[in-house]
Amino acid sequence: MDKIKGRGEIGIFALGGLGEVGKNMYCIDYLERLYIIDAGVLFPDEHLLGVDYVIPDFTYLKENEHRIEGLFITHGHEDHIGGIPFLLKQVKIPAIYAAGVTVDLIENKLEDYPELLSSTTIIEFKAHFKYNFPGVEVSFIRLTHSIPDSFGIVFKTDIGTIFHTGDFKIDLTPVGPGVEFEKLAKLGEQGVLCMLSDSTNALREGYSESERKIGASIKELFAKTEDRIIVATFASNMYRVQQIIEACVENNRHIAIFGRSMEKTILVGQQVGYIKAPKGTIIDGTEIDLYKPNELCLLCTGSQGEPLAALSRVANGSHRHIKLMPSDTIIFSSSPIPGNQESVNKTINQLFKHGANVIVNSPIIDTHTTGHAAKKELMLMLSLIKPKYFLPVHGEYRMQRVHKDLAIETGVDPNNIFILENGDVVAFNEQQQGRIAGHIPSAGDVYIDGTSIGDVSGTIIRERKALSDDGMFSLVMTIDTKNKALLLEPQVVSRGFIYMKDSEELTKYFVDFAKQFVNEEMAKTKIINLEILKKDLADKLEEVIYQKTDRKPIVIPIFMEISTN
Amino acid sequence: MDKIKGRGEIGIFALGGLGEVGKNMYCIDYLERLYIIDAGVLFPDEHLLGVDYVIPDFTYLKENEHRIEGLFITHGHEDHIGGIPFLLKQVKIPAIYAAGVTVDLIENKLEDYPELLSSTTIIEFKAHFKYNFPGVEVSFIRLTHSIPDSFGIVFKTDIGTIFHTGDFKIDLTPVGPGVEFEKLAKLGEQGVLCMLSDSTNALREGYSESERKIGASIKELFAKTEDRIIVATFASNMYRVQQIIEACVENNRHIAIFGRSMEKTILVGQQVGYIKAPKGTIIDGTEIDLYKPNELCLLCTGSQGEPLAALSRVANGSHRHIKLMPSDTIIFSSSPIPGNQESVNKTINQLFKHGANVIVNSPIIDTHTTGHAAKKELMLMLSLIKPKYFLPVHGEYRMQRVHKDLAIETGVDPNNIFILENGDVVAFNEQQQGRIAGHIPSAGDVYIDGTSIGDVSGTIIRERKALSDDGMFSLVMTIDTKNKALLLEPQVVSRGFIYMKDSEELTKYFVDFAKQFVNEEMAKTKIINLEILKKDLADKLEEVIYQKTDRKPIVIPIFMEISTN
Repeated sequence: MDKIKGRGEIGIFALGGLGEVGKNMYCIDYLERLYIIDAGVLFPDEHLLGVDYVIPDFTYLKENEHRIEGLFITHGHEDHIGGIPFLLKQVKIPAIYAAGVTVDLIENKLEDYPELLSSTTIIEFKAHFKYNFPGVEVSFIRLTHSIPDSFGIVFKTDIGTIFHTGDFKIDLTPVGPGVEFEKLAKLGEQGVLCMLSDSTNALREGYSESERKIGASIKELFAKTEDRIIVATFASNMYRVQQIIEACVENNRHIAIFGRSMEKTILVGQQVGYIKAPKGTIIDGTEIDLYKPNELCLLCTGSQGEPLAALSRVANGSHRHIKLMPSDTIIFSSSPIPGNQESVNKTINQLFKHGANVIVNSPIIDTHTTGHAAKKELMLMLSLIKPKYFLPVHGEYRMQRVHKDLAIETGVDPNNIFILENGDVVAFNEQQQGRIAGHIPSAGDVYIDGTSIGDVSGTIIRERKALSDDGMFSLVMTIDTKNKALLLEPQVVSRGFIYMKDSEELTKYFVDFAKQFVNEEMAKTKIINLEILKKDLADKLEEVIYQKTDRKPIVIPIFMEISTN
Repeated sequence: MDKIKGRGEIGIFALGGLGEVGKNMYCIDYLERLYIIDAGVLFPDEHLLGVDYVIPDFTYLKENEHRIEGLFITHGHEDHIGGIPFLLKQVKIPAIYAAGVTVDLIENKLEDYPELLSSTTIIEFKAHFKYNFPGVEVSFIRLTHSIPDSFGIVFKTDIGTIFHTGDFKIDLTPVGPGVEFEKLAKLGEQGVLCMLSDSTNALREGYSESERKIGASIKELFAKTEDRIIVATFASNMYRVQQIIEACVENNRHIAIFGRSMEKTILVGQQVGYIKAPKGTIIDGTEIDLYKPNELCLLCTGSQGEPLAALSRVANGSHRHIKLMPSDTIIFSSSPIPGNQESVNKTINQLFKHGANVIVNSPIIDTHTTGHAAKKELMLMLSLIKPKYFLPVHGEYRMQRVHKDLAIETGVDPNNIFILENGDVVAFNEQQQGRIAGHIPSAGDVYIDGTSIGDVSGTIIRERKALSDDGMFSLVMTIDTKNKALLLEPQVVSRGFIYMKDSEELTKYFVDFAKQFVNEEMAKTKIINLEILKKDLADKLEEVIYQKTDRKPIVIPIFMEISTN
């Protein structure tokens, strides 16, 4: 990499994850070797019409493939592992380092691509493992998060130590193993040159609620509910699922699982040991009619109002096995992710209309907690690690910015805090001095729609946007260029613009206008330039259509050229 | 109306406002006369692609035009008056009754349609006015809301009294006139047969913050801010605007107004007297460079991140007069309306990137309060009015449902509470017994896109959705049906699907497939049915395209039929 000065500097940059929540991918460049941290996807908002995923642009990695030492995964959420299949398709990765349940989730993901699975090696690390590379020792610190086996990653180098927290909260009464405080404290004592830390909840005051508290609250709800219970939660949160199972056991309920991702969670969770249930607790979804309502808990996907998920089907009456009853209690053990509020509300309205009782997370009943550290926890992390340099990562700019303020409050020198964008490179020299060393121009977004990578461009999205606003209006004309005549009656195709059966008059007006315009233009010129004529006709038609309808469909004239002699 | 039994019954129904927040329109039908309350629009969510407004279906009113006594407006928000121009275009309304600033806002709205203004009479009522109609006395009760001159409306009839609260909160320290408690209490004492009440904030615990508290909090912020201040708020909230002006006066700042709707508010507010500023306080937007930053407050539209509003332009650097400075403090005196969270966040990120200080409403600094009553206020209203029957209105189902529970808590008989949908008719007979009397089938949504009413159908929206997901792929073929031959090379038009320059090979594959398919089909049959052939080709092409790209564009084959003999 030309951005850092030869062997003596460490470079740090992100190909995704800065200025956004999603597609996390951070890179450390030292002694000509590249260490990648995470490979996530971003789920696009409604503006990226028809786009399924956004992934980082891997061009830089492709160009520097021979320097890649490995991909280190902090935890198994989609915004950290979802990009792996796309990455492996394009870039040779010698090894993927992951822990516990993360390994299973990656393997699961790669099952559909056996050729990818054989192109790399998945190396399972444990909390106490260390890996040595040229001039770099990689080790791990277990943290708490909303999925088991979440780790911060430590890169010890001769110049200094780089610490990436991954996603974390500091849960003092966790379900499952807790934060390895002693390692964090020791690391801070030994000195950290630069920390990269999770900014997701930097805007949130105070301290996040413990996962165990949510379990207690759910158990209370179960104890006082007399009829059937339906719970929706994030499939990946195995601790939550385990606590829901425990609530079932305590209250003599059987649990049935609905939704593919939830079934997968249960399977993986049981394999790894994070999910345990006495025999007979988990029943098959087809068997629920064999039990009384007060013996049942139905665990569903769809906590975000996803249209095809189990709970949404239950709500709109289209679920194969579950028929909603007015006596049902539905618990949302979740919060709407920004952008999903409306679809969640729609589901809640539908559930209420069936007469069911709906319980959502609220200040009165805690049915959910976040997996990300709030202000006090972020400051605790900063105080434990006491980094010389600080990079707020994993968040939108406003989150990074507030995280920076928190770092200053805990004593980090404001000049040593960089709010980077994807592609910005920070370099540290042997004197432990950091500087912005450049920018990787290829760092950007790649849209995935369907099977192929990177062929949905901004142009396509803009066209889709225009089509979605006012539709399209196309006119096919057959032109005899020799005799300067229109041959057949033009054909009109309109979609998403006006309903043609209701608008025959209007359509005829546009067609007549086009015929007249083309005839006049052809009469004017000696040699007809069809491309220019087509463009002029489109412009004129757009004007006339806007005058008549106040709408701006995409207007597409098509000329079929015929010579009749 | 056939739904109620002759002269002896009162009918109540909504054409909009139930199961939704928006397009409010309630009707009372008594002694063959129709009384309409409000005529609002609903701003569509992103699923209604390209739709500007949604309005109620006015078919029923059109059919019963001769029975309409008048349109009574509770207050001047768009979800209560925005539908008036569309209504007047279709239905003859003898008179519109409105108070104070609402009159100005309606007149302003109708200025663009002089023909509509002359088709009706706007009658300005005052709080103490009463109007008599056959068997009905209409009177008003002043309430508090986020726009001045908000009223509940009382319909006294021989059968009993109907009370519609309109939108309200119970602000105990209001800016401007307060709640007419004595009228509410007296009304409750005299007995109310049926109350319709605002459910918007039925899910919100406790009691809403007073508008005056927000003013105090804004003044505090002004007092401790040393550089330029930019404030964004809802243009219609004149009390808020007035308090911001007062904060300027107290802190020796001049205020400049940006954004058309904000300018209109200031103008109307000054006319009516709700907005008062010492001479020289309000300066022209072009003069801001004549003042020092600490002498300035810029009041902007764009608190919802609307792409073309003043603050959004400031944030993205495209505003004509305002260049953002890192020393600027931007105050959002607003909360994001559901669905706008993402665009607001985008604006905040942009502002932060310029280095500016951004302050949003939070538990720590109150920069905004709602205009709608929370649980305790709703229960207070119910306790004051003590209605025999209760209809929770103005809200989604989940809000109506929780509002019902609140009514039960205050003592309303659960059997006397109806959660209605638009079009449902409740009727009360002379014995004050209420029942669901039927449903108006024409009650529904009408989409407005551009100038004409009602020609955007569900079909058009579905087409736009399909276009927005995967675009369109069209193929024009010239067919000689006599000789069963394709004449010209097919032309391809693709928008929002694949970028054709990058996908020549793929395009050629689809064209070749189509040619072969059509030739084979033509060879098979004696007489070619072009319609069937077109449909078969579309189906086959869709399949092949999906196989190759995993996408489902709208496929449109166009056949130009030519006979060559």
